[in-house]
This record gives sequence, structure tokens and C-alpha cells, in this order.
Amino acid sequence: MYSIGIDLGGTNIAAALVSPEGDILERTSIPTPNQLGPQLPQQVTAAMAQAVFQVVEGGNFDLAQASSIGIGSPGTIDPTTQTIGRWSNLDFVNVPLGQLFIQALQALYPQLSSLPQVYLENDANAAALGEFFAGAGKEGDSLVAITLGTGIGGGAIFRGKLFTGFNYAGMEVGHLVIHQGGNRCSCGREGCFEAYASATALIRHTKASMEAHKDSKLWQVSPTLEQVNGRTVFDAALLGDQTAQAVIDHYITYLASGVTSLINVFQPEILCIGGGIAAQKEVLMAPLQAIVDREDYARSIPHRTKIILAQLGNDAGIIGAAMLAEYQ
Amino acid sequence: MYSIGIDLGGTNIAAALVSPEGDILERTSIPTPNQLGPQLPQQVTAAMAQAVFQVVEGGNFDLAQASSIGIGSPGTIDPTTQTIGRWSNLDFVNVPLGQLFIQALQALYPQLSSLPQVYLENDANAAALGEFFAGAGKEGDSLVAITLGTGIGGGAIFRGKLFTGFNYAGMEVGHLVIHQGGNRCSCGREGCFEAYASATALIRHTKASMEAHKDSKLWQVSPTLEQVNGRTVFDAALLGDQTAQAVIDHYITYLASGVTSLINVFQPEILCIGGGIAAQKEVLMAPLQAIVDREDYARSIPHRTKIILAQLGNDAGIIGAAMLAEYQ
Repeated sequence: MYSIGIDLGGTNIAAALVSPEGDILERTSIPTPNQLGPQLPQQVTAAMAQAVFQVVEGGNFDLAQASSIGIGSPGTIDPTTQTIGRWSNLDFVNVPLGQLFIQALQALYPQLSSLPQVYLENDANAAALGEFFAGAGKEGDSLVAITLGTGIGGGAIFRGKLFTGFNYAGMEVGHLVIHQGGNRCSCGREGCFEAYASATALIRHTKASMEAHKDSKLWQVSPTLEQVNGRTVFDAALLGDQTAQAVIDHYITYLASGVTSLINVFQPEILCIGGGIAAQKEVLMAPLQAIVDREDYARSIPHRTKIILAQLGNDAGIIGAAMLAEYQ
Repeated sequence: MYSIGIDLGGTNIAAALVSPEGDILERTSIPTPNQLGPQLPQQVTAAMAQAVFQVVEGGNFDLAQASSIGIGSPGTIDPTTQTIGRWSNLDFVNVPLGQLFIQALQALYPQLSSLPQVYLENDANAAALGEFFAGAGKEGDSLVAITLGTGIGGGAIFRGKLFTGFNYAGMEVGHLVIHQGGNRCSCGREGCFEAYASATALIRHTKASMEAHKDSKLWQVSPTLEQVNGRTVFDAALLGDQTAQAVIDHYITYLASGVTSLINVFQPEILCIGGGIAAQKEVLMAPLQAIVDREDYARSIPHRTKIILAQLGNDAGIIGAAMLAEYQ
């Protein structure tokens, strides 16, 4: 049987028909309604139902034969009540997304006596599950996935289930303090992992180094501070710029610190790294691995965590959502 | 049915008959053989079998009726092969403890056609399981236990099973780096949690503060540096000593940093704190909770981790060992 995955984002709603092996057979994407107001939850769930309709029609498929529909959503999620506690992007507070989505689906499919079971999960968890099932983790028994983006997201699978903590608020790996009293984080703490190793932190450090080093080749790569992005510093290092290399070395030192700590507590078979910065591949991974090899508490034992790049990119979330029935 | 727990230590081997509810019905303790040499593993396992014999006899019990025998041991443990990879105290390297123990038990009980199933686990994990089953965690669905001693030990139970990582080397919570580039740790990293928040770290800081403040009342409590222990600084603070209070404040800041990070990733229903320093109870717990209340990423949601003191003291390990059959 096939299942359906939905990746609910602030900009687009993506839906896909996914095979039991994790292959995407049919997909669609429609814009997320974003007119803030009391009816927005109904508009968003109607659009989600519409996306399901499109993907089912596009695949010449029968919705009644889908084994389940899984939804990955931003925000704080309670999977048991299928509620979004808070999603600031759309001003959602305590929105019963699962229930509204089922109502919208019933309105579109009045002839169906029963709908597939619906599952709701945090999008970072869904993406980790996708990588576990069909990507970086598919050869492993357990996985920790981290994403180096605006912040640092995390998700994990142990003993064949998503690991979320008892209140579904766990795996906030970006909010491990790795430098007590250090850089202020958006969460209110000082020295969080994501205040040093997110793409945001890298960009901030790149800009500060440009201001301090007017002769740096960083200015060739990015003539203004506004143009700096997560690639700037890597491009300048390729030109032999020492200032850029120092920023990268500092970044990888802190990235490795957080990664090693996560390995010391979790010892997953696979730790996978995704997000924009992961596009640097071996430039990032080789020095990271060298530091972990020196600092992993279990460095002397034969079975060690493998650190690898995420493999599914944006598809991880939709594939993982389609697999929630089994792994939630 | 009853089970038998063994707490193998560097000084003593404790064994107990434990009820299905986690009550100790009969106990014994014998010195651990410690003459280093090639026969030491056999001597230790013979002593363990002897301890089992004593506790079975003492309780007027029949070994054939025990449901299982669980062993908590120091060192790196592989529970699947029941081997101690390394235990430096007794110079053990790759000792097949489970197999040797069964042979020793067969020698003592030649008339028994089959012995109870034997389980081997790391002693910190066994202690966490004891607290989960019969102590601090018995009302919760999940537990992280940390022990503030020579280092900082950790253990966890999620979804009804011990959490160990795929290679049984996880939960090294003392080796989270919380201050990148900070105090050197025995593991080779700089800035580990246990380099700031173990009893060892507290004692080191107490001594350094005494040397820097010759007028401190710390010298009243402990006339020499050699006499300083984990209580010294708390006793001096009760006398109104500002130097001592500053050491305590510094200690609790770092303790809270590590505890908050553990909560942010694990979100267990219960986090329990044991070890010598935990004897300070509310003097420790009240300011710790205040910091966590400010910094926990999930501080605004209704269901939050409860931080409580460990309740079973030294019995946690032996009770947990007796429960391994169900939770390993």
C-alpha cells in the first residue's frame, strides 16, 4: 500500500504519494494561504486537502487505498491531539490541525465512508525519519539528524521510533550550551550550539570578519555585507584568503564540539548533517571528522558513530511524513 | 518470582534478593578480590557466586526459583557478549564476565540442571534503572539520572528500556562540553560538564579559592587543603562566608547549564540527581530549578521535566541490576 506525505511550510504545501520503500511516485506543491486571520487554519487545511486531491488524481490513485496520511509541520506539535501549540509564522496558537484537515478532506471526498488514518509531527522530526528510512540512515539501527540552517534543528530515531521526549519537545539540539556565558541565543541562553554553528552564526561571523579585515578577499566574493550568505566564506577560502579560513576553522571547531557532545550522549549508529552549510561536503566533513576522532569518548572502541551527509534534501520531510504511521 | 541483583564494585561485591516490586528482601556484601593477576577474573566471579550463595541461603531461598541474575559492573560493558571491555581498577581487559560467572555458579550448584538467565550491564545504567523502577522515576514514563561524584555519570530509560546507544557507549553526560576551550577534562576535551560540576571539580575550585582567600571561613571548616571534601564549601557558606558562596554559585551555574542542555535534548519526564553533592538537597536544588525555569527551551509548555533527588542511594545499582531482564 502507498501512503501520502504532506510537508506543510510557510510558503508552500507539498504533498506526495510515497511507496512502501520510500520512493516518491507523484508529487504536487501549492502555495500556503497566508492571509492572517481567524479563518487561516481552515484555509490552510483546505489547501492541504486540495494538495492531497491533486496528488491522488495526478497518480491515478484511489485515496481509499492509501494506508495513511502523514503531515510534517513547523511549530510545537502535540502528535497525540494533532494540535499545533504555536507556529508564529502563521500566527497559529493551539490549532487542532489534524481535526480541521480531516474535516476538509471529508468535504472533498463526501463519498468515502472512511478516510486513511492521519498523523501529525514536527517537521524536523519528519525530516529525520525520512533520512532514517530512505536516506543517510537506511543502513543503520539508529540516527540523529542535525540541520545547519537558520538555527540548528534535530531529530532522532531509536529502537524503531521517533525520539521526542515525553512532552514532544525534545531534540532541541541547537540549544545545548557549548560555551557557557558566550554568544546570546534567541532562546535566551548564552552560548548555545546554534549561536555558533548555524548558518546564521556563520554569516554573522563572516560579516564581522569583513568589517575587521578590509583587505580580505571576502570583499571580492561579496562586495557588500548585505550579499553575504553561507557560501561566501567558503568561496573566499578557495581564493586563499586567510581571514575566511580563520572563520571556517572557528566554525568547524564549534560544530565539532556540538557534534561530539551529541555522539557522547546518544551514540547513534548514524549522525547525519543537512542544511545549507552541508552543501560544502568534504570541506566541512573532513576537518569535522578529524576533531571527532580525537574527542569522541568512545574513540577507542570498534563500533563508532558514522557521520555522513544528509541525502534527501527537501524530500526528507515529505518521505518521513508518509512513514509516520509506522515510526511515530 | 524474585530476582537477584549484584553490584560489582572495586571494594565490595554486594548481592541482594529483590522482589518483583523492587524491594530488597535479603542482602550480603563481601570484599572484592583485588590481587592483580591473570586469575583475578576467576577470583572475582567466584566471589560473586559466593555472594549469590550467601544471599540465597540467608533468605532460605531456592536459586532455581530466581527469575534472573543481573550484574551491574564498572567499566565499558558489552551486554550482548556479557564482556567487560576495560575496567582499569582491576586491570580487566576483554573479560567475559558473564561466562566466567556462570561457570563459577555451576561449580557451586552442580545439582542444578539450569541456572537463572544472567544479565550484565554498566553500573551507572543499572543505578538509573533502579531509580526508574523503584525510586525517583517510579511515577514517570522516562528518566535521565545523573550522578555528581568523581565524575558525572548518567543513565536513561525511554520507552521502557535502558538507553545505551547502538554501541552501549552512550549517556556519557559528563562529557558534554559546556565551556568550549575551558577546563581540561580527563577525557582529553576541554570544558566538559564534569570538569565543572563533578564533586572533583567542586573540591578543586574550593581549594583554589582557599588559596586565593586566606581570610575565608573555609579555613575554619577545613584547616588544611587535604581535608577539603564536597561538603566543605557548603558548611562554610552556612557560616556566612562570601568566598564559599561564590564557589557554590559558580558550581550551580555550570550544573544548571548541563542539566538544562540535557533537558533540551531528552525532555525526560524525570531527571534525577544523585551522588555525594546531592546530599545538599534544597541548597542545591532550589537555585538549580530557578535557573532551569529561566532557560529550559520548553519552559512555556505545560508538561515539563521534573528535577528531583535520587532516592535509593547505593541500593539503586543492586535493584536496577535485578531488573535487567525486563529493561535491558
